[in-house]
Amino acid sequence: MVSPTAFFLSMAQSDTRNPQHSFTEMNELVLPNDTNTLNNLMGGKLLHWMDICAAIAAQKHSNRIVVTASVDSVSFKETIRLGDVVTLSAYVTRSFNTSMEVFIEVHAQNIPTGEKIKSNEAYYTFVALDSRNRPVKVPTIEPQTDLENEKFAGALRRRQIRLILAGKMKPEDAQELKNLFV
Amino acid sequence: MVSPTAFFLSMAQSDTRNPQHSFTEMNELVLPNDTNTLNNLMGGKLLHWMDICAAIAAQKHSNRIVVTASVDSVSFKETIRLGDVVTLSAYVTRSFNTSMEVFIEVHAQNIPTGEKIKSNEAYYTFVALDSRNRPVKVPTIEPQTDLENEKFAGALRRRQIRLILAGKMKPEDAQELKNLFV
Amino acid sequence: MVSPTAFFLSMAQSDTRNPQHSFTEMNELVLPNDTNTLNNLMGGKLLHWMDICAAIAAQKHSNRIVVTASVDSVSFKETIRLGDVVTLSAYVTRSFNTSMEVFIEVHAQNIPTGEKIKSNEAYYTFVALDSRNRPVKVPTIEPQTDLENEKFAGALRRRQIRLILAGKMKPEDAQELKNLFV
Amino acid sequence: MVSPTAFFLSMAQSDTRNPQHSFTEMNELVLPNDTNTLNNLMGGKLLHWMDICAAIAAQKHSNRIVVTASVDSVSFKETIRLGDVVTLSAYVTRSFNTSMEVFIEVHAQNIPTGEKIKSNEAYYTFVALDSRNRPVKVPTIEPQTDLENEKFAGALRRRQIRLILAGKMKPEDAQELKNLFV
Amino acid sequence: MVSPTAFFLSMAQSDTRNPQHSFTEMNELVLPNDTNTLNNLMGGKLLHWMDICAAIAAQKHSNRIVVTASVDSVSFKETIRLGDVVTLSAYVTRSFNTSMEVFIEVHAQNIPTGEKIKSNEAYYTFVALDSRNRPVKVPTIEPQTDLENEKFAGALRRRQIRLILAGKMKPEDAQELKNLFV
Amino acid sequence: MVSPTAFFLSMAQSDTRNPQHSFTEMNELVLPNDTNTLNNLMGGKLLHWMDICAAIAAQKHSNRIVVTASVDSVSFKETIRLGDVVTLSAYVTRSFNTSMEVFIEVHAQNIPTGEKIKSNEAYYTFVALDSRNRPVKVPTIEPQTDLENEKFAGALRRRQIRLILAGKMKPEDAQELKNLFV
Repeated sequence: MVSPTAFFLSMAQSDTRNPQHSFTEMNELVLPNDTNTLNNLMGGKLLHWMDICAAIAAQKHSNRIVVTASVDSVSFKETIRLGDVVTLSAYVTRSFNTSMEVFIEVHAQNIPTGEKIKSNEAYYTFVALDSRNRPVKVPTIEPQTDLENEKFAGALRRRQIRLILAGKMKPEDAQELKNLFV
Repeated sequence: MVSPTAFFLSMAQSDTRNPQHSFTEMNELVLPNDTNTLNNLMGGKLLHWMDICAAIAAQKHSNRIVVTASVDSVSFKETIRLGDVVTLSAYVTRSFNTSMEVFIEVHAQNIPTGEKIKSNEAYYTFVALDSRNRPVKVPTIEPQTDLENEKFAGALRRRQIRLILAGKMKPEDAQELKNLFV
Repeated sequence: MVSPTAFFLSMAQSDTRNPQHSFTEMNELVLPNDTNTLNNLMGGKLLHWMDICAAIAAQKHSNRIVVTASVDSVSFKETIRLGDVVTLSAYVTRSFNTSMEVFIEVHAQNIPTGEKIKSNEAYYTFVALDSRNRPVKVPTIEPQTDLENEKFAGALRRRQIRLILAGKMKPEDAQELKNLFV
Repeated sequence: MVSPTAFFLSMAQSDTRNPQHSFTEMNELVLPNDTNTLNNLMGGKLLHWMDICAAIAAQKHSNRIVVTASVDSVSFKETIRLGDVVTLSAYVTRSFNTSMEVFIEVHAQNIPTGEKIKSNEAYYTFVALDSRNRPVKVPTIEPQTDLENEKFAGALRRRQIRLILAGKMKPEDAQELKNLFV
Repeated sequence: MVSPTAFFLSMAQSDTRNPQHSFTEMNELVLPNDTNTLNNLMGGKLLHWMDICAAIAAQKHSNRIVVTASVDSVSFKETIRLGDVVTLSAYVTRSFNTSMEVFIEVHAQNIPTGEKIKSNEAYYTFVALDSRNRPVKVPTIEPQTDLENEKFAGALRRRQIRLILAGKMKPEDAQELKNLFV
Repeated sequence: MVSPTAFFLSMAQSDTRNPQHSFTEMNELVLPNDTNTLNNLMGGKLLHWMDICAAIAAQKHSNRIVVTASVDSVSFKETIRLGDVVTLSAYVTRSFNTSMEVFIEVHAQNIPTGEKIKSNEAYYTFVALDSRNRPVKVPTIEPQTDLENEKFAGALRRRQIRLILAGKMKPEDAQELKNLFV
């Protein structure tokens, strides 16, 4: 027989996970069809890879099928070239009931020179679905390192921006954001 | 012989284009590989299509090969399903020296029911390159309709947000944005 | 209560559609895998795009899943090159009980020069299917413009050719065609 | 030293080839992305496979890179299903200076039942190109079997139809065709 | 009425097939995405094509869906280049209850020079599955030619190697293999 | 001035790398086109992913474009299903002048159950090429851990098997292998 205490502990364990649990790395070779006629990787292809890598992280965290809810703004400062190796790494920074924020970093390496650059970073959010396509609760995040704590805290502020941009929150109600501008 | 005035006019004409000149529409069928195991279109695939459609619009405007410079935040509120027809339409809203902002709208239609929904909208920016991969000047935009004028005016504010997010402008210097929050 | 007249009108409306209702445009970038080693677009890839664009038009007209029944002869007079933007536009010209004829035009644009050529046109026919894979009746077409009327009239003659080529009609019974040759 | 006679013979040999020399077979599995949501193979995908198979046959005959010049009308009478094995076989029936006509047959086999049907046949024509994209002369065809002789003879009539359809010949000048209709 | 003998014979017939019955040929063009940046075909792409060709052969033999059980070692001695035509041919050499060994040969042809080389050969094994994903008995092989007899006999030895490599047989129990080394 | 000793050291450093330096991880989602009609991942697709992952590891080790020289036998004991996350990890175990042996492990995770299995392991070998497609010397490996030392030692024995299988070494000359069987 399972005692009430044991049951409580087991629930607590299954409801909370480390960011590291969802860590996911992908490596991709830039092939001809991924580039424009000047041999530069097209941004849309990279956004596609980032979505797959981030979605796998969110699936590892939640053990659920996930759908993309939003992507925050992404800028492409560095040129990635045909034949480069693109390394993507992602982990869940925080969860909000049925949704998860995933942080993702992208590096690109030129093989003959060995030079490796950081090309991008971005935040994707996902919603977990059950087998009937309905949103379902996901485990919470317990950050372990300084960086994970910083990402965890910042997730609230980034969520306010998303709610404002989606028209679901008034700018004047977003106190943390107001501090940025005044 | 070409008079100075005539020459100036011809330059002005070649340097300026209507948003409509770059208007680009794409239709895509959602195929099995574009979906997750619940038969929902994956967000990354849609971001990829949006990038291609927007890039074609930017190429039509500039007659140059273009690379994606940034994508503003995108939210995915509606579920798009296997077999749906996805219609993307894009046009250049404003250009800034060597870069262009492109507005893109996405609709999805369920064929058996005929129901059509607006699923997304987004702003992508592109940089035009010459044959040696160097940024090159593009024609300016002359908006014609009320909506085009509104997009043209808003492009300045969206650019301030991008510069702040990219760490190239201080929030307190973005006067238009400050007005939103205070 | 619905009067017989009202009922008749509502049926007529739902049974008839303009060609414009099915108008579908696709834009595609010619990527390396679409070309042979001389960097020319392969004909089969274009036939594939044409089929998808035409099928979407037929689906918009009928609100049904469709399958290709035939493609009339297509000639490829113009070379389309790597990096070109290919624009396909299609609409239903006429329907015959469970099948539809779709007219499709293809243009190709070279981005750096801005030169745009018409590369092809073709007629595809599709059959509409219900959810059990059985042919199902589709709305009729009511042409609006001169061009649409011409396409509508010609559809009968093209159908005779298809029936002859498929061995379902004797050449001597195709009066309209006989007039072409004698 | 090579005698004039020997030289003439060697030229004749290199200028003439059997249809069998170009015979090409392809087998393809129908995968989910090749089908519509009713699990039927899309016609455009099959046209794409047919073009690749026929192009390989034309390349084997000419030892040149080839581009598709035209495809004669194709009808799709049989439904091909997800998981079927599609077998395509093609060979050059006749060449005309720089172009070649290729005959192609398609069969589809259902694996669990073993049932095999002939689903299509078609004629594609190709032009051979040299390394500067210019049309170049190809070997002639010497048919060996009764069927090959029949295809060889019919190629002239089919070419007249193509020239008429392309607006390069008047119907009343195509004597062979006139006999069909009167 | 069917006599017992006749019944036995009919069973025997349906349980046995020639290697030739499963013979499968595929032709593929090497496209840009199949190559590395030096324009050489990537080995993994070729292993993928070999698996599809061999799987089709196993499906033709068994009239069942099949899954790959193993691939024996494959070496890539010859360089295959962008634009080459790759010809794969496969047939079942022997079956073992629910599994089949398939022999596959690969040739590559350079179109402009006409030069054709044998690039690889390999043995793949497959297991036949019924509609519930369970292994199911397949027909036996009756070799007809000297080569087919040699492949049939060698299949036993190759199976011993696979069982040893998979840790399911002790090397000292594989008498045929011991003879090779002592 | 650089002393002979310092020079020797610097050469040694640039010529030697840890296995960990080449460590490469890939995560892939099993999509519909990767599976047969029973929703099982096709072996050829997995062999393709393994080749890409292993090739990236070999490229990281050598800073050269690489081509696959061989793959040792691979067995597929576990079924991988549609929607599973496949995790591949690879590193260089030993180099031989211009070639490298790469060890690769494959795990598959079912997202809803969280169950993770080891599905495969394999050894691929690659040859490094310079910009003219000629084999070129690569750095040697200095194993650091017990497992890396074991892989490094075993690489010699596996190489003997490859040479025998490729007909380049007589079985009776492979002393290490003989010990296995007698």
